[in-house]
Amino acid sequence: MTGPSFGARRLKLGLFVQETGHHLAAWRHPAATVDDGVSFARFHRLARLAEEASLHFIFLADTVAVRERDPAVLGRTARATVLEPLTLLGALAVTTERIGLIATASTTYNEPYNLARQFASLDHLSGGRVGWNLVTTNSDFESWNFNRDANPLHADRYARAKEFAKVVRGLWDSFDDDALRRDKPSGIFFPAEAMHTLHHEGPHFRVRGPLNLARPPQGHPVIVQAGSSDAGRELAAETAEVIFTAQQRFEDARVFYADVKHRLVRLGRRPEHLSIMPGLMPVIGRSRAEAEEKFAELQALIHPSVALSQLANQLGGVDLSPYDPDGPVPDLPETNGPKSRQRLLLDLAQREGLTLRQLALRNAGARGHWILRGTPADIADEIEHWFRGEAADGFNLMPPVLPRDAEDFVRLVLPELRRRGLFRDGFEGRTLRENLGLPRPPDRRHAAAQPEALP
Amino acid sequence: MTGPSFGARRLKLGLFVQETGHHLAAWRHPAATVDDGVSFARFHRLARLAEEASLHFIFLADTVAVRERDPAVLGRTARATVLEPLTLLGALAVTTERIGLIATASTTYNEPYNLARQFASLDHLSGGRVGWNLVTTNSDFESWNFNRDANPLHADRYARAKEFAKVVRGLWDSFDDDALRRDKPSGIFFPAEAMHTLHHEGPHFRVRGPLNLARPPQGHPVIVQAGSSDAGRELAAETAEVIFTAQQRFEDARVFYADVKHRLVRLGRRPEHLSIMPGLMPVIGRSRAEAEEKFAELQALIHPSVALSQLANQLGGVDLSPYDPDGPVPDLPETNGPKSRQRLLLDLAQREGLTLRQLALRNAGARGHWILRGTPADIADEIEHWFRGEAADGFNLMPPVLPRDAEDFVRLVLPELRRRGLFRDGFEGRTLRENLGLPRPPDRRHAAAQPEALP
Repeated sequence: MTGPSFGARRLKLGLFVQETGHHLAAWRHPAATVDDGVSFARFHRLARLAEEASLHFIFLADTVAVRERDPAVLGRTARATVLEPLTLLGALAVTTERIGLIATASTTYNEPYNLARQFASLDHLSGGRVGWNLVTTNSDFESWNFNRDANPLHADRYARAKEFAKVVRGLWDSFDDDALRRDKPSGIFFPAEAMHTLHHEGPHFRVRGPLNLARPPQGHPVIVQAGSSDAGRELAAETAEVIFTAQQRFEDARVFYADVKHRLVRLGRRPEHLSIMPGLMPVIGRSRAEAEEKFAELQALIHPSVALSQLANQLGGVDLSPYDPDGPVPDLPETNGPKSRQRLLLDLAQREGLTLRQLALRNAGARGHWILRGTPADIADEIEHWFRGEAADGFNLMPPVLPRDAEDFVRLVLPELRRRGLFRDGFEGRTLRENLGLPRPPDRRHAAAQPEALP
Repeated sequence: MTGPSFGARRLKLGLFVQETGHHLAAWRHPAATVDDGVSFARFHRLARLAEEASLHFIFLADTVAVRERDPAVLGRTARATVLEPLTLLGALAVTTERIGLIATASTTYNEPYNLARQFASLDHLSGGRVGWNLVTTNSDFESWNFNRDANPLHADRYARAKEFAKVVRGLWDSFDDDALRRDKPSGIFFPAEAMHTLHHEGPHFRVRGPLNLARPPQGHPVIVQAGSSDAGRELAAETAEVIFTAQQRFEDARVFYADVKHRLVRLGRRPEHLSIMPGLMPVIGRSRAEAEEKFAELQALIHPSVALSQLANQLGGVDLSPYDPDGPVPDLPETNGPKSRQRLLLDLAQREGLTLRQLALRNAGARGHWILRGTPADIADEIEHWFRGEAADGFNLMPPVLPRDAEDFVRLVLPELRRRGLFRDGFEGRTLRENLGLPRPPDRRHAAAQPEALP
């Protein structure tokens, strides 16, 4: 089944899944079911919903810490307890059949051998449906759980991440695709020349290899990247096949899109081999007024201390307590946190003359991602506008309350997108890579003959 | 359903699962199916078999490296490619209902925060059926994949392991059992006092905590330990609830058993709170002659280079190439490898006057574990003898060819054990901890009132 396309482009949609929804106060909403806590059933239901709708993937975030010092503030959020994504993905891999499965993992607080193995195993378990959202981790909270006083510097994190990704991809190529002959009479399980020992020696890692695992069904699991700073874009252009980014305005998104695609081409890659997918929180109403009301209902449930705490984290862990919440947003010092996110927030405050509290509440709903409120037709209009206007190849959907708002999107917005010929109504292939229209990296034996492979 | 017991003792049986079986040459055997490679279906079938037989658990080994330098020797084994155990356990957690699920993970090549999270998540996914086999990793092969030239020294590994286990258990107690109130009207997801920040600072780790995950259903996943050196026994007596050990002779096993139980009591723990479970490879025949024939058939399939390679690894990575394979076993220097295993092998060679090649072949079949050949009655006799004679609380079964020999054990030996009143015919509880008769560690709020908790 081939979906509609515009030139080589096809609209991609992922479902970013979370316990009770992406709105900061989702768990307090009457429509939210929060009784079952860290429940597999909830994630399984969402994955099946995405699969039945032939979305491209579900997406799992990750942090290796709680990101708030004050237990009383943390206790007002549902963010302090989450299932670990790679073990959860193992469970989803064997209880779904077609949907792509993307999980986040940090290059700063893992070792490449361990992560290469876990993603390769997940790719085997799922029959080739796994992706790795590579993050460098942008807060100090994590560092305190890993024997450090602070997160490594931004530049160091990205240098490590680049080498980390290289090692992981090298390890995935430890065996040729057809290495395992399993020939009982001769006793040859695999011929020596079908195994490749990596012998990596770099500034951050020495990894001999080989990985103790057959080559993943996709060759390499799909690589996703979420950093939007200059270093993040460059790493994405070099290594990634999907970018998850925070973009709030069409004009900014177009500039970002053009910049990343340009970098890609400069590196000898084809523009359609990296999908740019901003986060999008759709707030769907039968009328615009209903959508506004739905959103206001959620916003009213946010506790101010929680909003300010989240803003402080998104600004890279600054201490906002010295500032008047009802005064202007101060001229904050540059931190070691997520650079592009800081810029986005400070620009927004300046543009609209927001106070600290107003900025906190604006940011709170979707953690700085684009919140789109309207009727199903309004939402389809904007998606079409961004897609046709080359501001996005698709979106990572962040429904405010889950599962309710994911179900509404599938029921109300998807048919509208399909009616316009914008979205497929089935899977094109078996693997995530096939469904994203990505080439399969050749194994070491075939790599020499195919110079157009990933760098 | 309560099983039979001898005083407080009940026979425990686990099924150690592997791709094609525990015999080194299993994959070459005509009965072995090796076509599906790293296949979830195979592991799922074995887990369901164990569950239907109400065994206590399935057990997954792990190494974070291939343990052979020569690709041609490695290529003669089926050991170079295995699924990663924690992601595999995620898949098994949601596709089984009662069976315990134990996976091995190294304290030398992981960080406690990551491992605490993955095991806690698995405990949530499985409804409280998970165990962690804590190993320190005993070969240099692993170190080369983790930026090192050699494995840390034995004493350092155990010092790190002890602190690692302490941090992991502390992190599992980050939330009280009933912490998550999820009170929508007040907006209190959990009260501040129900969360406990660890603030661990030790020689090997600084981990602030808390873990970002609700307390596991079992409180703590069951802790299994596999080292049998003096340091290994001491760590087990302090932290473990199951010991997986290699014991070949009743007399030696009795001494080991008495020593470990004595250590336990000395530390204020109850002897029945740690089950001693040697590995056991049952080779089952309708007659003794058939069992011998079955075993000989497998032994004949071992390539000598593979047997010698495995022996060298079990001796701690010594280089055996200077020695004549048909000469006596040389007086080898002590290495940094698994101390108890080295001793066991050298004692065996001396006792029986074996050549290097003979020792290699003797060791090859079950990697130094006890191989028991005979009729179902013979095998039940020996199990009963070891159990009643306090040489073992049960066994970790290592069938030579899988699934065939696991099916034979369930079909032929289990009924014999049940007929003798030695083995249960159903699960006593819902969690692994309940099924092993282990106490549930109280949460921090209740710990003060229950001083008999785990140390």
